[in-house]
Formats: sequence, structure tokens, C-alpha cells
Amino acid sequence: MRRGPRKARYDRAAIDAVLSRGLLAHVSFADSGQPYCIPMLYAHVGDGLYVHGSRRSRAVRLLATGRPACATVTLLDGLVLARSVFEHSANYASLIALGSFQAVTDADERLAALEAFTERLVPGRWAEVRAPSANELRATAILQLPLDEVSVKSRSGPPDDGNSSDAGRSTWAGVLPIETRFGTPIPAPELADNIPLAPSVQRLTRR
Amino acid sequence: MRRGPRKARYDRAAIDAVLSRGLLAHVSFADSGQPYCIPMLYAHVGDGLYVHGSRRSRAVRLLATGRPACATVTLLDGLVLARSVFEHSANYASLIALGSFQAVTDADERLAALEAFTERLVPGRWAEVRAPSANELRATAILQLPLDEVSVKSRSGPPDDGNSSDAGRSTWAGVLPIETRFGTPIPAPELADNIPLAPSVQRLTRR
Repeated sequence: MRRGPRKARYDRAAIDAVLSRGLLAHVSFADSGQPYCIPMLYAHVGDGLYVHGSRRSRAVRLLATGRPACATVTLLDGLVLARSVFEHSANYASLIALGSFQAVTDADERLAALEAFTERLVPGRWAEVRAPSANELRATAILQLPLDEVSVKSRSGPPDDGNSSDAGRSTWAGVLPIETRFGTPIPAPELADNIPLAPSVQRLTRR
Repeated sequence: MRRGPRKARYDRAAIDAVLSRGLLAHVSFADSGQPYCIPMLYAHVGDGLYVHGSRRSRAVRLLATGRPACATVTLLDGLVLARSVFEHSANYASLIALGSFQAVTDADERLAALEAFTERLVPGRWAEVRAPSANELRATAILQLPLDEVSVKSRSGPPDDGNSSDAGRSTWAGVLPIETRFGTPIPAPELADNIPLAPSVQRLTRR
């Protein structure tokens, strides 16, 4: 995205703010000179960004070689509607982390990361469901990217043309916020009628 | 994201469905062996995916060299809450386009792309605002990626453990939909009181 009052920030608070609100990371890496960019759920524990996947997944296998990678988490907060086409923009925050992933082998670190994947999206869910079996754990690769080289860019606020010659036009200008929320939970089709909505989901969907 | 009933599709309808719903593309490219992945607004005209930016932007300049690139558009539709940690997943659709961007030089194609950027997000906005000046057009690079090598992956539906031994557990399972919508428009601070909400924005925010 272009222009507007933006700044690159490297402080921990800005990093945490994006990572705590984001739902997905887009992870890019190259294979034989061709870049790929794939969406992955992520977790953030300590100074690491974690992704996971099947050990058989091509992306996981390539990332685990430690080749250079980039993980991007983007929040799109609104459309900035100016009086001219040119000044139209978006309000957003975007975190870009560069580095190399490596496979996490420590059993405790792996379990903590798995718990964080679940808990960051649906707090309390981890304790409601069956823990991973030894086979399931073996089938799952967990990769960590150290958050050493991170930048956060953002734009917020009204259009930039409030002091321009366009400001005299009789055109509405402002920001159209973009909101993301959880909808009404959809029970699995075979779920018994007497099983109540999980407390974790209740808390998320209480309006 | 991993597992689940997913499929890769290459048909035009699947491509159009993702591109018409998406808000952002994540565009990746490499520079000196380091991949980068950056969020960009996009437009979709004919068989091309368009992005734009300042001519001075580093990403734009690198992409315009025609180096290998990847553009990914992801829709996250819901969290899939199974009875086990392992079967937790996400419902999504993701389009991945590989190829090389090139700068669009034809004046008509450039203008059509600019109109599509605005119109796809806020239909009708183009006609409400001042058209780009010659200087603004000169400052703007428009890049096109031919949609030749595209795959669409998606997952939808309930958790996969409905027929597993976990299905007997008394744990709520199902899908928690994720909804994206426009919020209440925020007028620019200096906007005169007698300027009504633009018809384009009215249409988008009418509930």
C-alpha cells in the first residue's frame, strides 16, 4: 500500500499489538528461484513466531531447511476515501519478519507452541479438547522464526487531502472501517443435542 | 494450514470467486536471495492481477524488473473446532498466482486498472471523486501479473472427526465463522456538515 502517514517501528509493543490481533501469517520462501507465499496460522511465544503443519507438507519441509524466509501479518483496518482517486488509501498495520525458520525439537517447546496456536484464537479451548497423541505429535512439524529482524508499518487516520485544493469539493471523505468478528457458531452435524456450546466459544461470541 | 478436505482448483470460476471477495493480496519476491512478502491492494481485470504503488517504492521497482513473484489472496472463513487439538483447522480459500509482474504502459489499460482498484472495493466511488491528474498518473506505477499459473485451495465444512473415536466425547464441536464487514463511516474531521454520506458508501453500509 502506498503513501500516507506511515512509519516503520521496531519496538516490542508495536510487534505484540499486530501479532495479538492477527489471524493469519503469510509466509514466503523461494524454491529454485521461484518465491511462494502461503497462508499459515501462527503462534507467538516469547521472541519466536511459530507455524506448524504436516511433516509431509512441501512448504514445511522447505522452510525447515533454514532457507531465507519472510513472515507477514497484516491487519486491514479501513478504507481511506479521499476526494481524489489518487489519495485513496487503506488504514492498516503490517508486520514483516525476516529470517530463517527452524524445526522445534524440544518436547516442551513444541507443546507450548501447540497450546499457543489454539489458545490465541480460542482462549480456553486447549483444556476442553483431547490433547495430542504421540502419533499426532510425530506427524506435526513445528517451526520457529526468531523475531530478530522485524518491522511494523501502519497507516491510520483520515484522508491526507484535508488541506489540499480538493478539500473544497462537495465530496464526502473519510474512513470506512473494516471489522472482523466471529459469527454464530455452527454445530457439527452429528453433535448430540444435549452438548452445550463450549465455554471458550461462548466467551468469544457473547456480544 | 493443514489437513482437511481440501482441493486445488484451476477453473476460472474458483479464481474469480476468491479474487472478488478478497481485500488484499500478499505479494512476494526475492531480493539478493531474501524473500519479501508485502500486502498490496489489487484489482482483477480480464486475465490479469494488477497492483499499484509509487514509482519510487522499492517493492514496485523490484517487481517491475520482471523477477519471479507470487501473489496470494486468502479468505479466512472460520475456525474449525474439533474434539481434539490435532483436528483443529480453519475454513479458508486461498489463491496463489505465480509469474512475473510487468509495468503497464498503455494509458487506457492503466486507467482501467486504476478504476478497478477503486470500484471493486467501493463501487461507484470512481465517479464521485476527482480523476487522476497527469502528474499523479506519472507518479503511479501499475504492474500486471498474468493469471496463467494459478491454484486455488480451500477447506469448508465441519470438523473431520465426526466419525472418529473422539466423536463420542461430550465436547462441543463445529465451526466458528469469521465475518468481515464495513463499520460505521467516519467523516474526515474538516468535512463540512452539509456534505452528505457518499452514495457509494451508503450502499456499502446499508444493513
